[in-house]
Amino acid sequence: MTSTEDRLIAWLRRRARGAGGERIGDDAAFLPRGGPWAATVDTQIEGVHFLPGTDPRLLARRLLAVNLSDLASVGAVPRFALLALAAPAGFDHQRLLASLVEACRRWRVELVGGDLARSPALTAVLTLVGSRPAGGRWVRRSAARSGDALWLGGPVGLAAAGLELLRRGARASGSRVRLPPGFPPGGQLAAAARRAVRRHLLPQPQLELGGWLGRQRRAAAIDVSDGLSLDLGRLCRESAVGATIEAGALIDRPDLDRLAHQLGKEPLPLALSGGEDYVLLFALPASVEPPARFACHRIGTIHRQPGLHLREEGRRLPLVESGWDHLAGGSVRMQERKRR
Amino acid sequence: MTSTEDRLIAWLRRRARGAGGERIGDDAAFLPRGGPWAATVDTQIEGVHFLPGTDPRLLARRLLAVNLSDLASVGAVPRFALLALAAPAGFDHQRLLASLVEACRRWRVELVGGDLARSPALTAVLTLVGSRPAGGRWVRRSAARSGDALWLGGPVGLAAAGLELLRRGARASGSRVRLPPGFPPGGQLAAAARRAVRRHLLPQPQLELGGWLGRQRRAAAIDVSDGLSLDLGRLCRESAVGATIEAGALIDRPDLDRLAHQLGKEPLPLALSGGEDYVLLFALPASVEPPARFACHRIGTIHRQPGLHLREEGRRLPLVESGWDHLAGGSVRMQERKRR
Repeated sequence: MTSTEDRLIAWLRRRARGAGGERIGDDAAFLPRGGPWAATVDTQIEGVHFLPGTDPRLLARRLLAVNLSDLASVGAVPRFALLALAAPAGFDHQRLLASLVEACRRWRVELVGGDLARSPALTAVLTLVGSRPAGGRWVRRSAARSGDALWLGGPVGLAAAGLELLRRGARASGSRVRLPPGFPPGGQLAAAARRAVRRHLLPQPQLELGGWLGRQRRAAAIDVSDGLSLDLGRLCRESAVGATIEAGALIDRPDLDRLAHQLGKEPLPLALSGGEDYVLLFALPASVEPPARFACHRIGTIHRQPGLHLREEGRRLPLVESGWDHLAGGSVRMQERKRR
Repeated sequence: MTSTEDRLIAWLRRRARGAGGERIGDDAAFLPRGGPWAATVDTQIEGVHFLPGTDPRLLARRLLAVNLSDLASVGAVPRFALLALAAPAGFDHQRLLASLVEACRRWRVELVGGDLARSPALTAVLTLVGSRPAGGRWVRRSAARSGDALWLGGPVGLAAAGLELLRRGARASGSRVRLPPGFPPGGQLAAAARRAVRRHLLPQPQLELGGWLGRQRRAAAIDVSDGLSLDLGRLCRESAVGATIEAGALIDRPDLDRLAHQLGKEPLPLALSGGEDYVLLFALPASVEPPARFACHRIGTIHRQPGLHLREEGRRLPLVESGWDHLAGGSVRMQERKRR
């Protein structure tokens, strides 16, 4: 089951055949065809991707991080950024721009251009251009093969728990996090909650891991932005394969268990469809293992049979793709997530 | 007198020094530094850059045209596009995308990627990447020199008249234009009005002229988007020169005279600060003349003394930079233009 967004993109790929359409389908586009540059664009809109009142400094860092994650998933080295910023009257442009410049310096990205406009809704669109490292190759969604092992570059579900905490009143300024009123203070639970909020607001793009994947003989990758099951479905369709995930490998994580329990949620759906994790989901030949420094964990297997499955307590069940659909439903992400 | 936007950009260039800031300042950024690629980004927002209810097919063509004009002004050949599209519930994505794909085919641009999101305000952001043609060089704003002749690649002021007609009720669908209720039908005036509306909605990017400029030994250019005087001020500041415009060369044009008279406006302010003309404004050594096929006209002279002047009926008066300031004031472009 594909999302409304995926169906529209599939239509566009057919429609634009010969005019670039056949080149849509990875987290970044390779320029010129198969060439040494990768370009990607990402949007952050107030009330959709972040709560109204979010510190513009955080917004700038998040915008860059989310976009860098796309470059990470194709194995690119980030190089250049262009910002299109549309903001309402009275917006503090300098606060956002100063933070973006600082974040660009940190990631060695040059901010070389952009466009400013007025808009009723604060909207920031960042285009990033990265380069293929010497001796590397592009990592594509389409390179997974039957028999590959399926890996995650980090935990999933925590960012969604962080978003839920923000919805319930958690607030962040800089790297400080204030938990929602009434949330149990102190202890491992509060520490996990702060980590979850930070993970939602400031994802850590896995550029080093992406670079390592680009040096392997074969690797397929996508970053988990809309939900593990939805993004895995995309990777599998591009590779014309299926996959089975081991439930135990996803949810046996103290932070996720603690937070899900406290929030009255099940950890498994959070992990499978929470989204905005911005960790790399990748497939490698079974004989290859990522170095321990990346703290990846193996979560399943790629197989010839199409479709997604979940193995839980010995049973193998069909897994429905679910997560964030950018086009479905009438609400915005920050208020209520529409799932398919 | 610079605009709020220009002051913010000047601040950003200082702030981002060493992180790309010193490379901001042309209509496109050259990647890598001075390299063979040019990237630019442009935004179109409903209620700001176009009237609510505008046909999404027109919007798509305008978005591409406006952006292509930036590539024209640096002498680039358009190659690749990435679209970030944020639209409210119920928006007809396919209508816009089909038109964009068609326009991309026409201009030989490949649409290779993008990003879709929900937003209360229809917002389309297009990133274009162009390449430097073989044997060409980049055309910069900073290359004007004292003694150069100043040229325009087409008429100015007509697009602003077209916008005024739209505000008064003119409507367009495809290439058909319906004039406002009560507008004198038929004759040269009505024909001029239709041309003005089309010029506003569908600017013609001067890519061939830009390519010709890139083959000259030296040329400076900018496209007139925010207003002739404002954009000329930008070109002059980048080149550390001043300029004097001949009023007669701007307004002695039957279409502009007729329309201004009918709309109760003065033709000269329309020409000097109307904006959205998307014609190239360029400086060339006095000995060089653009080929007749480009229908350019010479409008003035570049000189060492900084600042802008206007020569009208033998008098030389200081010219105040005025036009569209993307950040000043509280209103949006389609309702009321804020001038500085």
